[in-house]
Amino acid sequence: MKTYSINLVRVAAIGLAVTSYTNPGLAQEPLPAWNDTAPKKAIVEFVERVTTHGSPNFGPEAERIATFDNDGTLWAERPIYFQLAFALDRVKALAPQHPEWKDKEPFASLLKGDLKGALAGGEAAIFQVVTVTHSGMTTDEFEKIVQDWITTAKHPATGPPYTEMVYQPMLELLAYLRANGFKTFIVSGGGIDFMRVFAERVYGITPEQIVGSSGKLSFEMRDSKPVLMKLPDLNFNDDKAGGIQMHIGRRPIAAFGNSDGDLQMLEWARGGSGVRLALIVHHTDAEREWAYDRQSSIGHLEKALDAARAEGWTVVDMKNDWKTVFPFGSK
Amino acid sequence: MKTYSINLVRVAAIGLAVTSYTNPGLAQEPLPAWNDTAPKKAIVEFVERVTTHGSPNFGPEAERIATFDNDGTLWAERPIYFQLAFALDRVKALAPQHPEWKDKEPFASLLKGDLKGALAGGEAAIFQVVTVTHSGMTTDEFEKIVQDWITTAKHPATGPPYTEMVYQPMLELLAYLRANGFKTFIVSGGGIDFMRVFAERVYGITPEQIVGSSGKLSFEMRDSKPVLMKLPDLNFNDDKAGGIQMHIGRRPIAAFGNSDGDLQMLEWARGGSGVRLALIVHHTDAEREWAYDRQSSIGHLEKALDAARAEGWTVVDMKNDWKTVFPFGSK
Repeated sequence: MKTYSINLVRVAAIGLAVTSYTNPGLAQEPLPAWNDTAPKKAIVEFVERVTTHGSPNFGPEAERIATFDNDGTLWAERPIYFQLAFALDRVKALAPQHPEWKDKEPFASLLKGDLKGALAGGEAAIFQVVTVTHSGMTTDEFEKIVQDWITTAKHPATGPPYTEMVYQPMLELLAYLRANGFKTFIVSGGGIDFMRVFAERVYGITPEQIVGSSGKLSFEMRDSKPVLMKLPDLNFNDDKAGGIQMHIGRRPIAAFGNSDGDLQMLEWARGGSGVRLALIVHHTDAEREWAYDRQSSIGHLEKALDAARAEGWTVVDMKNDWKTVFPFGSK
Repeated sequence: MKTYSINLVRVAAIGLAVTSYTNPGLAQEPLPAWNDTAPKKAIVEFVERVTTHGSPNFGPEAERIATFDNDGTLWAERPIYFQLAFALDRVKALAPQHPEWKDKEPFASLLKGDLKGALAGGEAAIFQVVTVTHSGMTTDEFEKIVQDWITTAKHPATGPPYTEMVYQPMLELLAYLRANGFKTFIVSGGGIDFMRVFAERVYGITPEQIVGSSGKLSFEMRDSKPVLMKLPDLNFNDDKAGGIQMHIGRRPIAAFGNSDGDLQMLEWARGGSGVRLALIVHHTDAEREWAYDRQSSIGHLEKALDAARAEGWTVVDMKNDWKTVFPFGSK
């Protein structure tokens, strides 16, 4: 019942945002969940310059490409990346079929509930966990597994499903940009097949506008039906600018991120000619969300914050610039 | 002057095709360059089933994905793949900077005008030629090189620029599908950065709707500006179904090809539930275009033709089913 109400609130909020800009005669103030501080002004001014015919910065719709990081930019990334939470839940679900995991790290620690011990193996341990949970099935089977998880799993700290842990101001921003002729893309180091399961419903972003990391695939016939098997090998590790070139083939004029992992994308967007918007979501709100930057391993923000200050990018101070954080309110 | 007239004819023809379907009240017969034979009927019937509200086969616009091979399906591929013609011209242009090529195959043969000798090295030789001509520059520089070539090079057998060697019936088909809410994608083994230079102008297909093979990229700063360097390593060899999954993330409901290289894509499109269209362009017109299939190394069509006949796919007999081949007429 609670989830249902939350969804209604969110749908209403997004609907409102869209309506405001498709009917300029009745236009309400854009981006209602944003305070009237510098970031909102920078966004609105940027969009007006790009969309005003005759403005020296006017850009045709085909060139209005906006790219968004996902973890920490569109949805939260605490206490751990949500895709990693999915992988850990899958390890537990698959454990009965893998008795050997009892004596094999990082699985042994994981199954004892010792996340810290499991992650002591660093990136190699995470890669192993992701590999066993993201390969060995068809793309259709994987989609169903993620679908089942994302509609039932709950965020451990806050209670609602992970798909409620999205930022209301960013949902409004996505809708505002699309209403102004922008194409909105996700560009994330996360798994492309994972994000596609919920991105259309949650963000209004269709599968072909999602850029992410992917595994190798093998085309096979099974019972005379073609399937794509997910293999345990990495195909493409999305490093942002390279992923943008491969998938989009056009430089974004606006880019949105929250960590050093987004620096390349922000620089790539800013490096083009004409008016550009590079924006960083700075997690400054320990009360309503989480506060972290230079000292954090998840969402580490250091070089990109320095670059933003040196080059005058837009930095969102979540605590002061957002009226609302999550559609359901705050943590 | 001739080119100018040809362009006008094509613009007029495409304009006509688009107008016909955006204003149903004044609708003219769709696909004017197609004869009223089985393929045209199959296409129109398929589109009507998918777009008629209340039809058991109705599909929402987000699922109306149509994928097209490029070489031999949207434009010609004789006497050699046009991208290979580009690479050969580039070898000649770059030769003064590479005195060592005089004694090194396949370059030595190429520079003597001995294409057959150069290609005797098979795929490895072609790969070498493609590598030296498609790497070692930024993506922006490569775009300019292709742009310069594509606007000046002429087809050796027919005279017009390569971008005139496109099939008028397929241009109409692209416009017809888009006017009916389809998203049209190119899915080709050809180079993604190469195709993107002209696909928007020639086919109306934007860069992000092009799927193809790509090389690795390196993000670098040059004079404080970010650039993407094209490296001499393959990043992704588009094998069709895998490329569709990675780039589009949704199974096409219609697919169009002309060779065994397209078989996987056609099977993948056909393998989904609901109404599907798989179509093969069969090169049967030695007079107006070229005639080739089972014996040809370029555009080899054997397994896909057998599959089409066994499974009842649509096969276009170019000679009998197309009123016009090229916008300027025929070879």
